[in-house]
Amino acid sequence: MTRKTRLLWLTVAAATLPALAWASGASEMFTQHTLLLIVMITLADWCGWLFERLGMPELVGQIFAGIILGNLALAGVDVDVADMLRSSHFMQYSAELAVVLLLFLVGLESNMGDLLRVGPNATKVAVVGVALPVFMGVGVWHLLGQGDGVEGWFVGAMLAATSVGITAGMLGAAGLLESSSTKVILGAAVIDDVLGVMLLAVLASVVITGDFSALDLVWIVAKAVGFFLVTLFLGRKFMPQIIHVTSMNHHASFWTGFSLCLALTAAQLAAFAGLAPLIGAFVAGLLLDDVHFVVGDDFQKKRVEELLQPITNIMLTIFFVGIGAQVELQTLLDPGALKIIGSLLLVAVVSKGLSGFTVTGKGFDRLGIGLGMIPRGEVGLVFASFAFSHKVFCCEVYSALVMVVLLTTIAGPLLLKPRLKYF
Amino acid sequence: MTRKTRLLWLTVAAATLPALAWASGASEMFTQHTLLLIVMITLADWCGWLFERLGMPELVGQIFAGIILGNLALAGVDVDVADMLRSSHFMQYSAELAVVLLLFLVGLESNMGDLLRVGPNATKVAVVGVALPVFMGVGVWHLLGQGDGVEGWFVGAMLAATSVGITAGMLGAAGLLESSSTKVILGAAVIDDVLGVMLLAVLASVVITGDFSALDLVWIVAKAVGFFLVTLFLGRKFMPQIIHVTSMNHHASFWTGFSLCLALTAAQLAAFAGLAPLIGAFVAGLLLDDVHFVVGDDFQKKRVEELLQPITNIMLTIFFVGIGAQVELQTLLDPGALKIIGSLLLVAVVSKGLSGFTVTGKGFDRLGIGLGMIPRGEVGLVFASFAFSHKVFCCEVYSALVMVVLLTTIAGPLLLKPRLKYF
Repeated sequence: MTRKTRLLWLTVAAATLPALAWASGASEMFTQHTLLLIVMITLADWCGWLFERLGMPELVGQIFAGIILGNLALAGVDVDVADMLRSSHFMQYSAELAVVLLLFLVGLESNMGDLLRVGPNATKVAVVGVALPVFMGVGVWHLLGQGDGVEGWFVGAMLAATSVGITAGMLGAAGLLESSSTKVILGAAVIDDVLGVMLLAVLASVVITGDFSALDLVWIVAKAVGFFLVTLFLGRKFMPQIIHVTSMNHHASFWTGFSLCLALTAAQLAAFAGLAPLIGAFVAGLLLDDVHFVVGDDFQKKRVEELLQPITNIMLTIFFVGIGAQVELQTLLDPGALKIIGSLLLVAVVSKGLSGFTVTGKGFDRLGIGLGMIPRGEVGLVFASFAFSHKVFCCEVYSALVMVVLLTTIAGPLLLKPRLKYF
Repeated sequence: MTRKTRLLWLTVAAATLPALAWASGASEMFTQHTLLLIVMITLADWCGWLFERLGMPELVGQIFAGIILGNLALAGVDVDVADMLRSSHFMQYSAELAVVLLLFLVGLESNMGDLLRVGPNATKVAVVGVALPVFMGVGVWHLLGQGDGVEGWFVGAMLAATSVGITAGMLGAAGLLESSSTKVILGAAVIDDVLGVMLLAVLASVVITGDFSALDLVWIVAKAVGFFLVTLFLGRKFMPQIIHVTSMNHHASFWTGFSLCLALTAAQLAAFAGLAPLIGAFVAGLLLDDVHFVVGDDFQKKRVEELLQPITNIMLTIFFVGIGAQVELQTLLDPGALKIIGSLLLVAVVSKGLSGFTVTGKGFDRLGIGLGMIPRGEVGLVFASFAFSHKVFCCEVYSALVMVVLLTTIAGPLLLKPRLKYF
């Protein structure tokens, strides 16, 4: 090939390549989102698998994947994944949708009947298990010299939110779902969720109004309770008719859309009522509980959960990786951060551990119940990321809090395992 | 209640409400996206259901829902849904993802073996069925006085892309999937897809380079063919190993992520090679064809299609509604627009109808084969929206083109039905 022909070829290539990049129809947005999604999902799935093999919850592995991606700079790779996630509406809304769908599925797992039939024991465990972490959290926050402001209350609230999924999964695998101690744990976790969400609504209001009167508190709590009762009442009354009308349509695709819209509508109604969207999604999930639909061309019975699961999985991966990506590893090496993590972890374990001892009656494993309430998991993370996105915490504290949630999620199952024989 | 107390209450309410809206954690972005999703999905699902009941494809109903939402101004409702969709990265990327997932599923439906074994009859139908609409489209575009530029070629390319899904569904419902005429249609549609995508790559290059040499054409076609062959070769060689390694993981959630990442990776590779992302996704789908995975806690057999279906459904709804929303109804009342629609519809029906008569041999229904190729459906829409988003067409022409695609999609099944007895 002569020099001239080579030059000609190079010119053609140089002229054609940008044209082709454009012609490919792949916008810069498409490329960035696609590459990000591929890396996030693949890494998160494999980390989740690895952590599960090591006896830890999958969720911890997914957040670990996020921590890796968010701290690539430490390995000399100059890619700011945390910033890419923050600046993308797609990733942001997907993460918000993840929370809504997650609480919807939590609601689906909970049973309305069980919720109403929750015994005094579960109620005591839940109330003490929320009050103790809050007050101990505020106290320790004060002792740590982090101030007496609203941050301390947020920390306490975050430590109050139990994630029952991990414990329930473990008890289910051990065939202990019918034991009386398990029922106390599951019942308490449901009340816990409701109390936690109300706490969040109240605290968030404190942040913006600056000071806070008892009247506001009463108003928010009344609204939350009112929303809960009105929605449940209307839902129980009209849901059968809605399902009946909707049942004219047999496509599975239709039911995916219907379930998603139901969760979104309830979330939005809660938001309009001034509550957190997730409480609405939770109530919608409660309403749909135990509903089996006839869907699909072959009229298979499929659960709403199954239809929403693929969407929820992808969205939750984005959410968990996003949480991990915002953890700044180098800030955790600071002795101050380590002190915060250690102290809050102690509060988290002790406060929930003690809540089990409020149970009265025979045939319960009080310590086991307390230990079963330890994992904070996704619900704690929802709170922490809410506070972070509303600038209650700086990045250092947020990183420490995420680590505390992660550690409780790892510690919970480890501590509970040896107690299972007493259940 | 005294006037003073009432004032006090009003003040408290006025002060609390914005605080609550903030406290609810529902950002403006969340509210707008959520409301939009609820309306889009609900309306599209019900319109799809209604149109299906009326004997038309569901897709036509979904686009009809989009047309309603995009033309609310005509009913005096001042909400610009088309603009909301255009300005949202979430909606935009979801629509792009929809196209990738759609072509991935089309690839899954196609069978590599069938593609290689496609007979001369199917090849003839495909080639003539692509060449005729392109040249007739360019000619009619010229006769309509719309100029000789690249727009005419885009119109022709759009008229060339067959959507076999609707015809296949109809033939399947009639139990005719094994007839020799059906096999010609399905085989031709697969080649049609490949030819169409290449045509798109070439035309898009023309738009940006202004003029276009034979060398560029050869280069693009060679690259597309090369990508196709290399990917298929490497994929067939390494996919079994990849599946084998990945099979260590039994969670359904993992397989959802894996399939999605596979489609995205192939799409991105195609984009890097200067091709349309959708050709990559299509090849990835071909590679995964007939792969059944062992997934789920109960080791159920689930198809990749089933795991991706819920995500694809929601994303496709966003895509179809978005397409409909960009149709401006008032521009269609213009006599010029009506002339375009009528002429192109005639070209669309006649050109594909004639392609069937290239079939040689006995036992074929030549007219039926041609009529089976008429629906343009989603593939035609992908082309039209590509051209629109790259500003090849103004809004009026785009609206007319979407109507042509819709009408062919409605006309196809109607014309084919009486011929089914000859298959």
